Amino acid sequence: MTFRNGLDSLLRPEDSVLVLIDHQPYQLTNLNSHDPHMVVNNSTALAKAAKAFGVPTILTSVIAERGGLIFPQITDVFPGQEVIDRTFINTWEDKKVVDAVKATGRKQLIIAGLWTEVCVAMPVIQALGEGWDVTVVTDASGGTSVEAHEVAIQRMIGAGANMMTWLAVASEWQRDWARTEHAAELTQILIQHAAGSGVAYLWEQQLLNTPVPAKG
Amino acid sequence: MTFRNGLDSLLRPEDSVLVLIDHQPYQLTNLNSHDPHMVVNNSTALAKAAKAFGVPTILTSVIAERGGLIFPQITDVFPGQEVIDRTFINTWEDKKVVDAVKATGRKQLIIAGLWTEVCVAMPVIQALGEGWDVTVVTDASGGTSVEAHEVAIQRMIGAGANMMTWLAVASEWQRDWARTEHAAELTQILIQHAAGSGVAYLWEQQLLNTPVPAKG
Amino acid sequence: MTFRNGLDSLLRPEDSVLVLIDHQPYQLTNLNSHDPHMVVNNSTALAKAAKAFGVPTILTSVIAERGGLIFPQITDVFPGQEVIDRTFINTWEDKKVVDAVKATGRKQLIIAGLWTEVCVAMPVIQALGEGWDVTVVTDASGGTSVEAHEVAIQRMIGAGANMMTWLAVASEWQRDWARTEHAAELTQILIQHAAGSGVAYLWEQQLLNTPVPAKG
Amino acid sequence: MTFRNGLDSLLRPEDSVLVLIDHQPYQLTNLNSHDPHMVVNNSTALAKAAKAFGVPTILTSVIAERGGLIFPQITDVFPGQEVIDRTFINTWEDKKVVDAVKATGRKQLIIAGLWTEVCVAMPVIQALGEGWDVTVVTDASGGTSVEAHEVAIQRMIGAGANMMTWLAVASEWQRDWARTEHAAELTQILIQHAAGSGVAYLWEQQLLNTPVPAKG
Amino acid sequence: MTFRNGLDSLLRPEDSVLVLIDHQPYQLTNLNSHDPHMVVNNSTALAKAAKAFGVPTILTSVIAERGGLIFPQITDVFPGQEVIDRTFINTWEDKKVVDAVKATGRKQLIIAGLWTEVCVAMPVIQALGEGWDVTVVTDASGGTSVEAHEVAIQRMIGAGANMMTWLAVASEWQRDWARTEHAAELTQILIQHAAGSGVAYLWEQQLLNTPVPAKG
Amino acid sequence: MTFRNGLDSLLRPEDSVLVLIDHQPYQLTNLNSHDPHMVVNNSTALAKAAKAFGVPTILTSVIAERGGLIFPQITDVFPGQEVIDRTFINTWEDKKVVDAVKATGRKQLIIAGLWTEVCVAMPVIQALGEGWDVTVVTDASGGTSVEAHEVAIQRMIGAGANMMTWLAVASEWQRDWARTEHAAELTQILIQHAAGSGVAYLWEQQLLNTPVPAKG
Amino acid sequence: MTFRNGLDSLLRPEDSVLVLIDHQPYQLTNLNSHDPHMVVNNSTALAKAAKAFGVPTILTSVIAERGGLIFPQITDVFPGQEVIDRTFINTWEDKKVVDAVKATGRKQLIIAGLWTEVCVAMPVIQALGEGWDVTVVTDASGGTSVEAHEVAIQRMIGAGANMMTWLAVASEWQRDWARTEHAAELTQILIQHAAGSGVAYLWEQQLLNTPVPAKG
Amino acid sequence: MTFRNGLDSLLRPEDSVLVLIDHQPYQLTNLNSHDPHMVVNNSTALAKAAKAFGVPTILTSVIAERGGLIFPQITDVFPGQEVIDRTFINTWEDKKVVDAVKATGRKQLIIAGLWTEVCVAMPVIQALGEGWDVTVVTDASGGTSVEAHEVAIQRMIGAGANMMTWLAVASEWQRDWARTEHAAELTQILIQHAAGSGVAYLWEQQLLNTPVPAKG
Repeated sequence: MTFRNGLDSLLRPEDSVLVLIDHQPYQLTNLNSHDPHMVVNNSTALAKAAKAFGVPTILTSVIAERGGLIFPQITDVFPGQEVIDRTFINTWEDKKVVDAVKATGRKQLIIAGLWTEVCVAMPVIQALGEGWDVTVVTDASGGTSVEAHEVAIQRMIGAGANMMTWLAVASEWQRDWARTEHAAELTQILIQHAAGSGVAYLWEQQLLNTPVPAKG
Repeated sequence: MTFRNGLDSLLRPEDSVLVLIDHQPYQLTNLNSHDPHMVVNNSTALAKAAKAFGVPTILTSVIAERGGLIFPQITDVFPGQEVIDRTFINTWEDKKVVDAVKATGRKQLIIAGLWTEVCVAMPVIQALGEGWDVTVVTDASGGTSVEAHEVAIQRMIGAGANMMTWLAVASEWQRDWARTEHAAELTQILIQHAAGSGVAYLWEQQLLNTPVPAKG
Repeated sequence: MTFRNGLDSLLRPEDSVLVLIDHQPYQLTNLNSHDPHMVVNNSTALAKAAKAFGVPTILTSVIAERGGLIFPQITDVFPGQEVIDRTFINTWEDKKVVDAVKATGRKQLIIAGLWTEVCVAMPVIQALGEGWDVTVVTDASGGTSVEAHEVAIQRMIGAGANMMTWLAVASEWQRDWARTEHAAELTQILIQHAAGSGVAYLWEQQLLNTPVPAKG
Repeated sequence: MTFRNGLDSLLRPEDSVLVLIDHQPYQLTNLNSHDPHMVVNNSTALAKAAKAFGVPTILTSVIAERGGLIFPQITDVFPGQEVIDRTFINTWEDKKVVDAVKATGRKQLIIAGLWTEVCVAMPVIQALGEGWDVTVVTDASGGTSVEAHEVAIQRMIGAGANMMTWLAVASEWQRDWARTEHAAELTQILIQHAAGSGVAYLWEQQLLNTPVPAKG
Repeated sequence: MTFRNGLDSLLRPEDSVLVLIDHQPYQLTNLNSHDPHMVVNNSTALAKAAKAFGVPTILTSVIAERGGLIFPQITDVFPGQEVIDRTFINTWEDKKVVDAVKATGRKQLIIAGLWTEVCVAMPVIQALGEGWDVTVVTDASGGTSVEAHEVAIQRMIGAGANMMTWLAVASEWQRDWARTEHAAELTQILIQHAAGSGVAYLWEQQLLNTPVPAKG
Repeated sequence: MTFRNGLDSLLRPEDSVLVLIDHQPYQLTNLNSHDPHMVVNNSTALAKAAKAFGVPTILTSVIAERGGLIFPQITDVFPGQEVIDRTFINTWEDKKVVDAVKATGRKQLIIAGLWTEVCVAMPVIQALGEGWDVTVVTDASGGTSVEAHEVAIQRMIGAGANMMTWLAVASEWQRDWARTEHAAELTQILIQHAAGSGVAYLWEQQLLNTPVPAKG
Repeated sequence: MTFRNGLDSLLRPEDSVLVLIDHQPYQLTNLNSHDPHMVVNNSTALAKAAKAFGVPTILTSVIAERGGLIFPQITDVFPGQEVIDRTFINTWEDKKVVDAVKATGRKQLIIAGLWTEVCVAMPVIQALGEGWDVTVVTDASGGTSVEAHEVAIQRMIGAGANMMTWLAVASEWQRDWARTEHAAELTQILIQHAAGSGVAYLWEQQLLNTPVPAKG
Repeated sequence: MTFRNGLDSLLRPEDSVLVLIDHQPYQLTNLNSHDPHMVVNNSTALAKAAKAFGVPTILTSVIAERGGLIFPQITDVFPGQEVIDRTFINTWEDKKVVDAVKATGRKQLIIAGLWTEVCVAMPVIQALGEGWDVTVVTDASGGTSVEAHEVAIQRMIGAGANMMTWLAVASEWQRDWARTEHAAELTQILIQHAAGSGVAYLWEQQLLNTPVPAKG
């Protein structure tokens, strides 16, 4: 088990490809590791960040005609984009998805989905065995219980996966505030999806744009 | 301590008035009873529900020029509406706010704000002493610690306050799904702010509008 | 606020009537106060206990054709029994349900349902105002968050409701192990729905029916 | 410590063998890491899934005449099957059990039992040392405290074990919804033992089989 | 609901009578609100404190021949004392127990037992209705779930019961460290059953009996 | 049980008197309801706020020569002030303390101390019975377990006590930011003892005193 | 990082040596990861099990004349045995202790102590570097916070340590209930220190020694 | 993944260098893994310990003119010391900081900062890849959620980082109480920042300096 470190191991937008798996109603009904609203919020924020940084994002669902369409909050980020619908519970055994990923030419495979222990664990573990560098975004995923979510994280670590959360991924893509191309978009994403920081940013701007109060 | 019960004790939009107190950046910085994103989400949802049901809503802040403006997520719901800015930490000692509440002619006073134990507790306890029927929306509020939030809830119960959460308030205003005037707006609020139910509703509609699959 | 105590305040099967409100899929999708499996388990156990002790049980749902039928685990306990379907979110404003309750002639009204803060709180609070003795079975209910569930419990206590959990209700109906009529049924319910005690009972019987081991 | 990944590392029914260790009353009395009802539920669901997918399952207990028979919920799944009763606390030092496992010719050894830190850890750690590919199903196991359960999981990870939960194991056996042989059985298991998803499935079917409502 | 306060409302050994209900193996098997070891520890400590302060203690069990004898840790505190065995789940409907309590002539009735929501709640609620001043020792009790234990506490508060924990009861009996009669016994109880304070006391004595170290 | 509400029920520095009970090493050794550092921090902050607002503060300990002196963090706030050392566990049975309180002529009695369930509960309950208006500052107190702390809070609510936390007490004394006499001292207390808000205040000042950045 | 597995990796009494480090009052005062009573209970139980199985046990303290003597509950298990008192915070840099361990000729080094992150982590990490096979007994240890305890466990896993809890160690020494030499002593330890299992054992014996009840 | 163990792997002040990253208001506003007051307390304590032991400490912030200056509690420890302000979110890509670290000639790189998952994870992971021995002080850091903080810790462990908490670092620097140079300073730090131990130390001194009480 080699350590995964060094500058190269950090995520770069130009090398990243994001696969969002089975963010569907049927899975959300029995999500018990998180508040479902926060998982919808976090996965949507991740999708917006990927779009902002030009990270190709593949959307895939399993039998959507029955388990329901991908959350509109996510599909609205990629208007008109095809959702690859599968029968395979293990996304990585679905050639269409794997081909779509390979077609991007990207090396840093980033995966989030519902449930952590089923629809995320299997593709992550398989892809790692095929030499992919795989990152799992845990708070844009979720499981049928806290134990199922946490045990699956341990299992994927044991398979070699890199564990992150959505704001860490977005910050790693941004890497330097001197890079201004996506700073505004990232700030909007914070306001919409990480209000604790979004509100603080707005306060910062309000105060900075308040003339210095006269002394006394 | 008389029990607060009976049909009349349930909230009716026509008798409700909502006061949103100090949902400001300075307070959000030290909110440790909830995930700040959820408190911004819940207070915004409460604001949208009040607007949908025609419940007059008073926005008030304390020294906004320093502690920051009310969250835009809330003020955007009432474009152009004045925010009563106070120096009083106890909103109910600020005549402008009390007059604004009295001007609505409404009897069921509903309060949410930051922090539960300071800017919510004081006005709630004072207003109760003046004969108001007061409801506190706890998950659209928050405190500097879980203990501060929960102890303040106990204190306000001991003062006679009625404790609710935002989705319960909205449902009590709706009261009957046969009343269709606000059903669509309420459904949108669920999709935006209670994704666990919003996504389930969309799934319900998707499946209902799917032709019955042929047998075999 | 008078104390609710004395022998008469304990639940008696002959005076009890149980109303199970909105144990439906739509509500279960956004139940976040409990593990959904345990709420289905507990509400089914409560239903079985009511049937065992001859406690009339009224089943009611809200727009079942959209929000889904009552859990089969519950309806299977009362094969063929009508489920009163409502548009009213507040069950107690639905004359059919109230009439069905009054028709039983029973005084001790016991309510469980989904969500604690909406479909349980409203009927409980209204019925209390109309003089009913109301008990809420909290672990056969559940809310959209732990806070919503717990704050609703505080609200209903402030309205005068009596708070219990399903195994306490069943034990209070049983009251004395010398009463053997329902002991066997209650034991089966423990084995099926409270395995911690069911398994212990089976062990007790196994060991009691094991000949005393010869000394040495 | 080599990573455990790749398609081959995923569980296949045809290569799986399940050993259920000491799901007995004596152990359940001091299970404090989970709700005992959920551990009985989860271990029964795992047993049913193994049977549905044709995964040979070995049942073993320790001094059952004193510590009690295996939970009937489990033995009822394998009517008439012998339970290998041991004096060894470490199952893997009991030749009868090891021979029974080897006799199946299966390579993917899956273990669940009570207590995680005693009757699961020892056989898992020993078998790993003998080259077995070992998966532990943590939520069909349990320990005398949350710390004992979680520390034992860390210990077994350090020994090379693969950690999963019961619904992940069943889903991995199913692998693809296009495989219909066991889909119906798996769905029944969800309804009986994962009501959060079982109820959602029944809702899905109800709505899909509801004629599309006329417009307006 | 009158407030319970004033010097007289504090517990005095000379007015106290303790009833320990159903501290038996069958109940302990499904105790899930506490670590079972701590409930056995706390109820034993309470028993020892009662004995030290001359507080008459009534031990009662339900069908002990099947559910098991009272924990030896407790009965050893009262060697040879009769345990009143009942069939009644509600202790207060068992004349033998009530007569035993009345025979002590004590007014401050203190109750602890397993389960909080069944074998403690019923007698407490009934006795309160008959004018008894009733204190419940919650950490020498326990329920089948955290919710069952906490909801039962709320129910008994609503019935007028006074809620305490075992070290608070013992300290209230001691009331003043100038009263030395029982100080030594209480200190031993701390060493055996509240090691956090027992060890601190021993340290205090060790340091106080260490000659003042020479300066420099 | 009358509700405690109305403007008069809010704490005013001119009517307040603070009693800090047994903040001593022996008690801190077995404090398990909070992080001990936070209880020392909170009780010190409360002491500083009382001093800032001119609220007479009585310090009392129990057998300090053995249980240790009051935390220096507290006594340093009142250099040279006498600590009333008692043998009474129940402070309110110690005439010296009661006389000291009465001597202040203040009506709003505020109490914090270690342990919540022993050295706070007894004096609070007794004083309430003697007509005092009593407020307990829960996060400047603490108990031997989370249950002991929370059950004691419920007991004192049942006795008529008003429950608050230290920052709520300080804010209620401040009441209006237009009152500038103590604002600076209160701000320092926030910086030293509520860093979440102290740091936010310093940021606010930094940004306000930053010239408005030129556009572009 | 090689996996630690195989039969040989399981603990055997004949190869085990136990070092109990700094179970002293000063450390217990700021133990916040566990209930201090349970850590004293667990470390005492571990000591008794070591004695029962003939596992040489080395007791060591740091500046006991100031930080206090080792808990009497532990030293009473080894009457008259020397406690090696150190100035070194890192026990493994104290020659006397290391020599005492080496003198036992045992290979499986087992360590427990206060605090996990200081007095346990340093000797464990150093000894691992010197080729020792080291097991840490986490629930007979404890830290100044839950995070400090858990992070130290992760650190020691990263150093190659084997993590266990006290009942798992005792069970692994026992290994087979057919080995009766120490079974009685181990059962007594369960009754005294794992009451959840001790009480169940006594129940088992009671029922087994109850003549089979006549039918009907 | 080689194990990190042996005496040399323990932290020595002479080989340590501490980098404190982005302890700034903007980050503190959305810190939700800890109580913000404790993170300010712990990071200040770590700074003081570094200064006491002569460990060179580099302070760095990101766009301080907007996100706010480093907490004064930290900068006051190094009066007049330059804070390296960056635009890089990843500190280790900022040459000034890396050069400052290299200039110290120290090998054991110790990092703490806000947020764990962003401003700590990136430099830690990069530095590890460049052969640095890196320790992360988790309780002097913090993240936007408990999950973000804990997942980042797992990620950095997978990168080879050594995880500690502040009191463990200070104790490891002290290593032996016979080394008196920094003992007094360390004791002061305990009194100011780990009151649970600071108060116990003061008690120890008080009792030791109390003449042995005359017998009887």
